This record gives sequence, structure tokens and C-alpha cells, in this order.
Amino acid sequence: MPRPANPETRSRLLEKGGDLVSSRGFNASGVQEITAAAGVPKGSFYNYFDSKEAFAVEVLNEYWDSVVALYGPILADGREAPLSRIVRYFAGLAEFHEQRQYAFGCLIGNMALEVTTSSEDVRAKLATIYLEWSMSLTACLREAQARKELAPGRDIRQLAGALIDAFEGAVMRAKVERSRAPFASFESCVLQCLLA
Amino acid sequence: MPRPANPETRSRLLEKGGDLVSSRGFNASGVQEITAAAGVPKGSFYNYFDSKEAFAVEVLNEYWDSVVALYGPILADGREAPLSRIVRYFAGLAEFHEQRQYAFGCLIGNMALEVTTSSEDVRAKLATIYLEWSMSLTACLREAQARKELAPGRDIRQLAGALIDAFEGAVMRAKVERSRAPFASFESCVLQCLLA
Repeated sequence: MPRPANPETRSRLLEKGGDLVSSRGFNASGVQEITAAAGVPKGSFYNYFDSKEAFAVEVLNEYWDSVVALYGPILADGREAPLSRIVRYFAGLAEFHEQRQYAFGCLIGNMALEVTTSSEDVRAKLATIYLEWSMSLTACLREAQARKELAPGRDIRQLAGALIDAFEGAVMRAKVERSRAPFASFESCVLQCLLA
Repeated sequence: MPRPANPETRSRLLEKGGDLVSSRGFNASGVQEITAAAGVPKGSFYNYFDSKEAFAVEVLNEYWDSVVALYGPILADGREAPLSRIVRYFAGLAEFHEQRQYAFGCLIGNMALEVTTSSEDVRAKLATIYLEWSMSLTACLREAQARKELAPGRDIRQLAGALIDAFEGAVMRAKVERSRAPFASFESCVLQCLLA
């Protein structure tokens, strides 16, 4: 069956459906509700995605691409000292969640906990995102090491992983407590200690 | 309607249903599947729980009680230095997830991300668990401060929150990567730096 190509419908499904999945959870969001949120007929869903899992992978793609587009440049901004870029990067991410009143959580974390065991495709996509995230931080941390902002003996890959995990855990608690407090702990404890 | 009281059925529902919810997610586990996992008739579910949300609150209760029973005594063991108790405590929790091959994740985190926005009762229960968790760590960290294992100026409540978040983030990534690596980052980066 030839598929009608309407990129606008596809991106509306990803955007509105993605918001629904972010706030309600993947399993609680049916195809019917995803299409309703995007204002398109239910039947059209399968013109764009082979399955709900394939849709999940695309939603993660879009989410991660937008995070990279918005905040990636901070990490690569050579005019600023590397560690100060990392602080500004996480402050940007925290503000992103603050603007959404902590209600969505991080789609990466949500999917990690909800969909990982049921869909190998989603798990593999998430593993790739974690790897890319870690690599972008690792590059900046290595620069910090080269400029002697960090001790030469530090295990940079472990440090990048620890920063990501501590931040994702803060996003999770912020969703429960509906407050910025977890980000304050992240900034004044984790960032200050780990980047010293 | 009088409710038949069978504590054994109730605890089987909480145990087997809790495992199902942990591995598959709350919304993906229907009442039918929860009762099937426990080997009891579907109709009996509502003899024990007013709703699936009420069941979720009880599952969280049981989960948290078992974590406290298993690992709480480590934090309170006055024969050991406070910071070394905290290291042993988190090693115990990591081993708990390792034994389950990282597939379940932490039920607290899972529920935080999946159910928080749809059920105020579950959100409130999670906030209480976070508070109790933070308080048990805070008590041990204050002891460390009194014994000069930690600098007097450290904000102990923020430190406790940061440790919890960093650990929960590691559980999440371990579920995706199916490896112990995130716990190694937590131990050698977060614990070592934050407790120095």
C-alpha cells in the first residue's frame, strides 16, 4: 500500500503524541488518544508508523534531537571554560523542566523505566541516546582535563555517566515533589563536588 | 458488602502483582493480569483494593517496607563508622537490583515517572517515601558530621537528596544498559566525591 506522505501530519503526531506520552506514560496513551491529540484520524497513525513501538522510537528521536539542538551548543562553545559550560548546560536542562512545571519528567527516563522491558527497539534507542549524551559530556570534560580544570587521573567516562544519572534522578524526584529542590541539590552538591 | 478477609490472598496479590507492575509498568498491567499472576479470581481484586491506584499505593508500601527491613539496619548499625555504613547501604541496594538482573528497576522510580501525574494518592505516597528515605540517610550523615567524618558546613539534607537521586538515576540507566556500570559510576564518582 502506498503511503501518503504528509510530513506535517507526521510531525504533529510526534509533537502532540509525544507530549501525551511524556505526561501520561506510554502504555496509558492509546493510538486513539495520540491521534486525537494531534487532531488527525485514528487510521492515519499506521500510515506513518509501523507500530506504537516504532512511534516511541521516533518520539525519542525528536525529543533527543531537540535537546541536542537547544543545549548541545553550550557544551561546544569554545569561548567559555569547559566546566563552566557544563554547569550552564545542566542549568539549561533544569530550566527546561521548570518551564514544564516538572509534570512531564524526562522522556528518556520515562521510557527507560516503562518501555525498556517490553520493546527491544526502544531499549536499543535509549542505549544509543545515553551513549551520545555521555560522549558529548565526555568531550567537554576531556577539554577540562586538558586545560587542567580537572585532575588528570579522573575517569572521565564514569564521571559523565554519574552526572547524567544524578540529573535524571533529580528530574524524577522533581516530578514527585513538584519543586525545583532536587535541581538545587544536583547543582550545589553533585556538580560542585564532582567538578572540583 | 462484607469483605472476606484473607490476608494470604492479599499479600499474594501485592507480591505477584507488584512484580508484574515492576517489570511491565503500572498502566501495562491490567487487573486481570495482576490477579492471574497471583493465581486468584479476577473478581476478588476489589475485595482487597478499592481501585488500581489504591493497589499501587499498597504495592509501594510493601516495596518500601521490605527495602527498609532489609537495608535500614545497616544505616543504624552504631558499631560501624557512619560513612562506611552509607557505602555498605548503597552497595546492598545495588546488589538487590543486580540479583534481579536490572530488569525491574526501582519501583519508586517507575511509579514516580509513570503514575505521578495521574494519581494524587500515588504521588503523595511517593513523596512520603522520598522523605523517609532522605530522613534515614540524613540521620546517618549527621552522625558522620558529629564525628567529624564530614565538614561541619555541609548541607546534609541536600546531600541526602543528591545521593538518592544519583542512585535512582543509576538504577534507571542499569535497566537500559543491562549492566552494573552505572552502579560502578555511582560508587566511584558520586559516593567517593560527595562523602569526602
